[in-house]
Amino acid sequence: MSNNKVIAYFRESAARIDQTMRLDLEAVRDPQLAEVLRYIIFNGGKRIRPQLTVLTWRLAGRGKGSGEEVLRLAMAFEYLHVASLVHDDVIDHSEKRRGKPTAQAAWGLGPAILTGDWLHSRALTLAGQAGGREGVELLGRAITAMVEAEFLQARLATARKSTQADYFKVAAGKTGALIGAACEAGIMLAGGDAKARSEGRSYGEKLGLAFQIVDDLLDYLGDPAKTGKAVGNDLVESKLTLPLLFALERAEVGDRARLKDILAYVPDSRRGCVGEVRNLIESYGGFVLARSKAEELLEAGVLSLAGFPAGPEHELLSGLAAYVLSRDK
Amino acid sequence: MSNNKVIAYFRESAARIDQTMRLDLEAVRDPQLAEVLRYIIFNGGKRIRPQLTVLTWRLAGRGKGSGEEVLRLAMAFEYLHVASLVHDDVIDHSEKRRGKPTAQAAWGLGPAILTGDWLHSRALTLAGQAGGREGVELLGRAITAMVEAEFLQARLATARKSTQADYFKVAAGKTGALIGAACEAGIMLAGGDAKARSEGRSYGEKLGLAFQIVDDLLDYLGDPAKTGKAVGNDLVESKLTLPLLFALERAEVGDRARLKDILAYVPDSRRGCVGEVRNLIESYGGFVLARSKAEELLEAGVLSLAGFPAGPEHELLSGLAAYVLSRDK
Repeated sequence: MSNNKVIAYFRESAARIDQTMRLDLEAVRDPQLAEVLRYIIFNGGKRIRPQLTVLTWRLAGRGKGSGEEVLRLAMAFEYLHVASLVHDDVIDHSEKRRGKPTAQAAWGLGPAILTGDWLHSRALTLAGQAGGREGVELLGRAITAMVEAEFLQARLATARKSTQADYFKVAAGKTGALIGAACEAGIMLAGGDAKARSEGRSYGEKLGLAFQIVDDLLDYLGDPAKTGKAVGNDLVESKLTLPLLFALERAEVGDRARLKDILAYVPDSRRGCVGEVRNLIESYGGFVLARSKAEELLEAGVLSLAGFPAGPEHELLSGLAAYVLSRDK
Repeated sequence: MSNNKVIAYFRESAARIDQTMRLDLEAVRDPQLAEVLRYIIFNGGKRIRPQLTVLTWRLAGRGKGSGEEVLRLAMAFEYLHVASLVHDDVIDHSEKRRGKPTAQAAWGLGPAILTGDWLHSRALTLAGQAGGREGVELLGRAITAMVEAEFLQARLATARKSTQADYFKVAAGKTGALIGAACEAGIMLAGGDAKARSEGRSYGEKLGLAFQIVDDLLDYLGDPAKTGKAVGNDLVESKLTLPLLFALERAEVGDRARLKDILAYVPDSRRGCVGEVRNLIESYGGFVLARSKAEELLEAGVLSLAGFPAGPEHELLSGLAAYVLSRDK
């Protein structure tokens, strides 16, 4: 399937997810809670997670569960994703997200935290309604992985050291777990066995990791006009992303010492070193190696779906993997 | 059953709940998350909510569910209670709880919010494991009520006006809903029908409201050496509690204007008026009326259990109602 066809499908299908969420939110009684929810949810998200639940449910044969149930389960993953963004923005004291004031900047600390709590609760309730005990457990495991990854990331930031193993552990918890669970959920609802569930989860986890690596690449190499973010943000925030970790591993003594010096600077001084760091990463092949790692993950991810029947769902899931690599924003 | 016997039972039974939570927390892998969880959970709580789930389950005849399942469901209510305290402390920028630094004072904003998220998720997962879809929905409704009550309370505080109807709406959401759900959960697990569930919930909701009113009374009339709180805290925080609302309703024009003036002062000036306000409430019968409202609620609460068989559970639940009125801390 062509990249354009894949993009068109996901855009159209996102509108259906949005419609389902709008209907669901009509039941919210408190007017301000409803307003904050709409503000943070309808903010241009691509709805990848819920779409994956719908696609994997179809892929696994639509065995059990109605179309309505799969949409409830799908919504749960978007709600959980949004909840994690809102609470992350509070924790990071972020003022802006996608160019708009964050929830706590627009509404204050209380509404931001409480709206995240509501989303957590609604997500788990929806998962229970559609998937029973197993549905709740699946979502609960993803939340645990996300929380644990945040704790680990904070410890690594304090310790100012991180290896590739740490990087993948954090990314697996923060990004891979939820996308993996969204894929596993569709197969679970369709009645897939443990093997099928694990294959679906594996696709999602690898897609999530690759997505994160491409994010890392765009941070140094992207066009700010397209990404909407300044180049080198990750360096300013002292994040040891995969391209930089490759460079640190392979750099000669002097260059490695220079990179470590820069990482110990205050943020404003690091900002002036973005070009220099980008050149060092480039010269040690950090970008090429990170990109090839993302390719490898996506290839393995698509391969884990080999046991499922061919058809449009299979093509869309492979197409999404290709899109992740090609994206420029 | 004598007050002392009731207190002894609840103390002993609290130790069993603590033991169950300690075992449950052994599965937490991240060492810091585990540390924060233990810090905030084992903080001298009376474990009233989980004990109510166990007692109502027994009251309704232990029909369905094993003892292990009822403890899982019971724990869910304590986890949810603790999660709400942790997030409330973040929202209120509170430095201390029960004389110890709050989670965010001791560990920072991120660990406090994330540990609350973990507790939310674990609570809903436990409710799903023990009570399936119905268990999750029951807990989810309580969370929604709590979040909505927080939004309402914030709006009322901004508007600087509040009626008895508002007061009861906020207290029902913040305190009644969770205690009501804890009672309903035990009856649900035992296989009780809709009527029995509603009777159990009604007992819990009224117990929760009465508990809140007694809290309001202790704030003005309690012995700081026993309550551990300064007298008149609610006035300093500009909270329109029930005794004050009764006084405002019944006061003559001049006294009402004086009370409203005091409420509009800055917090430090209000602190100097606690004695004056207490005397005004007293002279308009605010304390007597509030206490009689609590008595009325507890009587009605115990009455809603009339359809359940007599026995030790019935006596303990009536005894708890009597204890709520008699407590001095």
